[in-house]
Amino acid sequence: MQKKKAELDTLLLPTLYPASQKRYLTGSRADMRVPYREIEQSPTQTKHGPVLNPPLPVYDSSGPYTDPGCQVDIRQGLPLVREAWIEEGGDTIVKASDQSLSAPRKIRRARDGRNVTQMHYARKGIVTPEMEFVALRESMRLEELRSDPAYAALLRCHPGQSFSASFPKEIAPEFVRSEIASGRAILPANINHPELEPAIIGRNFRVKINGNLGDSAVTSSLTEEVDKMVWAIYWGADTIMDLSTGSNIHETRERILRNAPIPIGTVPMYQALEKAGGITEDLTWELVRDTLIEQAEQGVDYFTLHAGVRLATIPLTARRLTGIVSRGGSIMAKWCLAHHKENFLLTYFDEICEIMKAYDVSFSLGDGLRPGSLYDANDEAQFAELHTLGELTARAWKHDVQVMIEGPGHVPMQMIQENMDQELRHCFEAPFYTLGPLVTDIAPGYDHITSAIGAAQIGWYGTSMLCYVTPKEHLGLPDKEDVRTGIVSYRIAAHAADLAKGLPGAQMRDNALSKARFEFRWNDQFNLSLDPDRARAYHDATLPQEAAKTTHFCSMCGPKFCSMKITHEILENQSQTDSLAEKACEFRQQGSEIYR
Amino acid sequence: MQKKKAELDTLLLPTLYPASQKRYLTGSRADMRVPYREIEQSPTQTKHGPVLNPPLPVYDSSGPYTDPGCQVDIRQGLPLVREAWIEEGGDTIVKASDQSLSAPRKIRRARDGRNVTQMHYARKGIVTPEMEFVALRESMRLEELRSDPAYAALLRCHPGQSFSASFPKEIAPEFVRSEIASGRAILPANINHPELEPAIIGRNFRVKINGNLGDSAVTSSLTEEVDKMVWAIYWGADTIMDLSTGSNIHETRERILRNAPIPIGTVPMYQALEKAGGITEDLTWELVRDTLIEQAEQGVDYFTLHAGVRLATIPLTARRLTGIVSRGGSIMAKWCLAHHKENFLLTYFDEICEIMKAYDVSFSLGDGLRPGSLYDANDEAQFAELHTLGELTARAWKHDVQVMIEGPGHVPMQMIQENMDQELRHCFEAPFYTLGPLVTDIAPGYDHITSAIGAAQIGWYGTSMLCYVTPKEHLGLPDKEDVRTGIVSYRIAAHAADLAKGLPGAQMRDNALSKARFEFRWNDQFNLSLDPDRARAYHDATLPQEAAKTTHFCSMCGPKFCSMKITHEILENQSQTDSLAEKACEFRQQGSEIYR
Repeated sequence: MQKKKAELDTLLLPTLYPASQKRYLTGSRADMRVPYREIEQSPTQTKHGPVLNPPLPVYDSSGPYTDPGCQVDIRQGLPLVREAWIEEGGDTIVKASDQSLSAPRKIRRARDGRNVTQMHYARKGIVTPEMEFVALRESMRLEELRSDPAYAALLRCHPGQSFSASFPKEIAPEFVRSEIASGRAILPANINHPELEPAIIGRNFRVKINGNLGDSAVTSSLTEEVDKMVWAIYWGADTIMDLSTGSNIHETRERILRNAPIPIGTVPMYQALEKAGGITEDLTWELVRDTLIEQAEQGVDYFTLHAGVRLATIPLTARRLTGIVSRGGSIMAKWCLAHHKENFLLTYFDEICEIMKAYDVSFSLGDGLRPGSLYDANDEAQFAELHTLGELTARAWKHDVQVMIEGPGHVPMQMIQENMDQELRHCFEAPFYTLGPLVTDIAPGYDHITSAIGAAQIGWYGTSMLCYVTPKEHLGLPDKEDVRTGIVSYRIAAHAADLAKGLPGAQMRDNALSKARFEFRWNDQFNLSLDPDRARAYHDATLPQEAAKTTHFCSMCGPKFCSMKITHEILENQSQTDSLAEKACEFRQQGSEIYR
Repeated sequence: MQKKKAELDTLLLPTLYPASQKRYLTGSRADMRVPYREIEQSPTQTKHGPVLNPPLPVYDSSGPYTDPGCQVDIRQGLPLVREAWIEEGGDTIVKASDQSLSAPRKIRRARDGRNVTQMHYARKGIVTPEMEFVALRESMRLEELRSDPAYAALLRCHPGQSFSASFPKEIAPEFVRSEIASGRAILPANINHPELEPAIIGRNFRVKINGNLGDSAVTSSLTEEVDKMVWAIYWGADTIMDLSTGSNIHETRERILRNAPIPIGTVPMYQALEKAGGITEDLTWELVRDTLIEQAEQGVDYFTLHAGVRLATIPLTARRLTGIVSRGGSIMAKWCLAHHKENFLLTYFDEICEIMKAYDVSFSLGDGLRPGSLYDANDEAQFAELHTLGELTARAWKHDVQVMIEGPGHVPMQMIQENMDQELRHCFEAPFYTLGPLVTDIAPGYDHITSAIGAAQIGWYGTSMLCYVTPKEHLGLPDKEDVRTGIVSYRIAAHAADLAKGLPGAQMRDNALSKARFEFRWNDQFNLSLDPDRARAYHDATLPQEAAKTTHFCSMCGPKFCSMKITHEILENQSQTDSLAEKACEFRQQGSEIYR
């Protein structure tokens, strides 16, 4: 039995990606190690011999799990990479020690009267280690590569259409600070989450994606959820929301947090409702307050709070086709109507801010009235709530508490941009964090696709983080394979948005992969892809032999009809092409009809 | 052995969709039966008793296979629904009879000097039975439903952003005629394809999708390809391209055509190259001409011909990252360079038009120089070819031959619209038919998604038909499950485009499905979806019991946290809501702070 548990706890971890090296950039201090992954490439074979292809650096959210030098035991939790930074700031005190774990854990809060938010520091002009960390992480050695001739061709890219985003040539720590100070970006980093490798969410940075996990009363287990979390970050999730609603809610979250190198978000109302015995009417401010503190002390980095569901706006949903489709939103609406009182999250908003700033928990202001069908898209209820979220943003910023704004749901393509525009205007450019949007309602079973279409667009228009949707959306709880499909679909959407915006360096991976593809370096093509295992498996379904990894065709077209192979045959006779180019030039000068 | 073959030939056919009726609209003549599918819905249960939900009509490309009154034997082929129309036009002669089939087949061509293209008739002001057929098919009883109160709520929809498209209130046969006459739409309908249920391709109609099939030298069999075709139209393909390159190329195509209720396209060069022993240099105009006639006599509805790959523009590809990625394009380029001669498809373009108009084969002018990577997107080579395709469009139209233009490949989002704009400008609004585009190169294994993102956008901007991409793109030949995923992904993209453009009636299915979802009519939700089997299977993965088909939750959130369930609890006390709405109104009038 003992053995079985141990197996469950260790069996789950992924290994390093194929042909990859875990690398770290070092910041201004020895204990700052900023991770990235380097994908090795094989050389290009030419008639003059092999020509080296440089390794490709890519953003890496997977944490210590993919570091061969780091032994992870999920009962112990991850190394406390931020511990010293938090301690030496001198603004926190150790309030208690959590003894429930195999390694006792310090529980911190701000000293009386202190504010420990990244926004507070930023506004005071202080560049925290976390800010320096994300500056290095986002810039990903780009300055260095720009001066390396080996990367010159890979770095060529199309100009973007950035809408309101604006990218600096170089991402300096000072730029990160100013973005956080203005509220245009957030750096969710609870002082009780020292395991965190900081990441930034804002539209002048790489678009991020969130994966939702969590057991429901119907299915799933604690170990399963941790397993999903680890795999989700392996596939590329930047943050994870633990949406558990079952009975193990505290334990699940603890296990996830202690093993999470990425920011963790929650909807605290779910746990508060459990505490109220599942009776919405019995929810009280005190119950919620205690839950916020409990979760803040565990280290949750951002809270989704549906403070924008107002008693006055709930009736606007009565004529909707699909009413209220946010779980938190419907709970608050029910409470408001039952008591005929204003939403207590709104009433006690300043008290909530006091809690948030004592731990640096960021707001993710929930869109309780988001549309659950195309029919309800962009309606009065949705935008009324958005206005309230804007007001709350201003209030939170008075406390220097970080804020992002949740949005969309189901929105047809022609109505997506209005969401982004309204959000920027009414929420003062606070980062937008959207679910999808799903651009049609008619494809349950494929909603990772209906929503990736909308997500790519809204990401392009300026959304900072995209909340994933899995194939099981509307139908059931996702399993690990659904999580994989959902995460990769959203990495596609986020990357497509980065490319369209013109994020510096974004096109490098596309260029490298396409070059590998054109040169029939099959293994490089797989290794450079978002999901190397799947790419390889699909190729091997028809041509499993190792020899097929260098052949100049695949089973799609076969050897005689491979266009790339034919192109190579054309190019091989370089002199022929050269003379052709010359001839073309000659003819053009002579004004020949054929070379118009 | 005999038995096994028979099994293979009949085993493959899908049955009718769940809860669906095959229906036909009758045109001006008794032999015109225009198919659509009606999805039945269960009633909504209210406290006042059940309220009926009307059946939902949807476009149906699946042909006789889903008609329980029609016994299909794929060795015999489908009923000849167009036979009488073609015959009574009086413009064709029976040239020969193909005796190779179990039922001998008449091979027709135009009488000397006659032109049998739909464009020719349209320009003479003649409304053919085919035009009337597609008018009925596209309008899908919408006028009738508009005057039926049962559909009033379902017909509510958002205004679209149509770019250059413009939808008439009612799709009359005369509108179809004028669209074809202008060249803005094509109706691909070879006189030797009497099994065809006509469909129209143009941006003022429903966006269509194409699925590619066909064996390669490496894998797949004849029966398998017919099987895939039948399933592809079941899942929603509007046309199929048979891209076979193996040795059974004629037989595969014959089997597909005789069993195809949808237009079939081919790339004749593949077969010509087989005839040339696979030696590109040995291709001749005579070989190609004979192949065009052979395929036109079989009944192919449109030919992809890479006539725009010009000797002069080939050198523009030399600096590309991925050269030429079109199979047909690379063959023509190789031929041009080997002989240092202009592309013979261009040289003999008028001769080709003479063949096309004798059978009414439509041009699908191939984009031999489409970009195979983001790097190569929208480059000089691509747009130089597009200009040539525009010139060829004008030449084809002089012969009254129908034309559509092939486009994209790999294009980042910010550069998609330029493709559509250039096409409309330089090709005189001929229908655009695009592969994807894929908006990033880095996700082999998921290219149905990278490309559905781009396809939805270009469809919105005005593309008339989207060529699907399967998960196996770049990796291997798709199997049946890949075809399913590719087709449904593209139905999503096409429908999202229809919605965004504001195609009349498009949102009805979304509304019906969302209403079913909100009312926990699980079976209706599945039945109304694009892939009922998958939706049901995903739901049943966690809650397989029949009782779970009416429960007010699923395993995603469980019973306590279902937002829709909570909304119902709120709405149930209607008087409460009413009084709330009243109170809200009162308060607003009084200028109360809480109801701002």
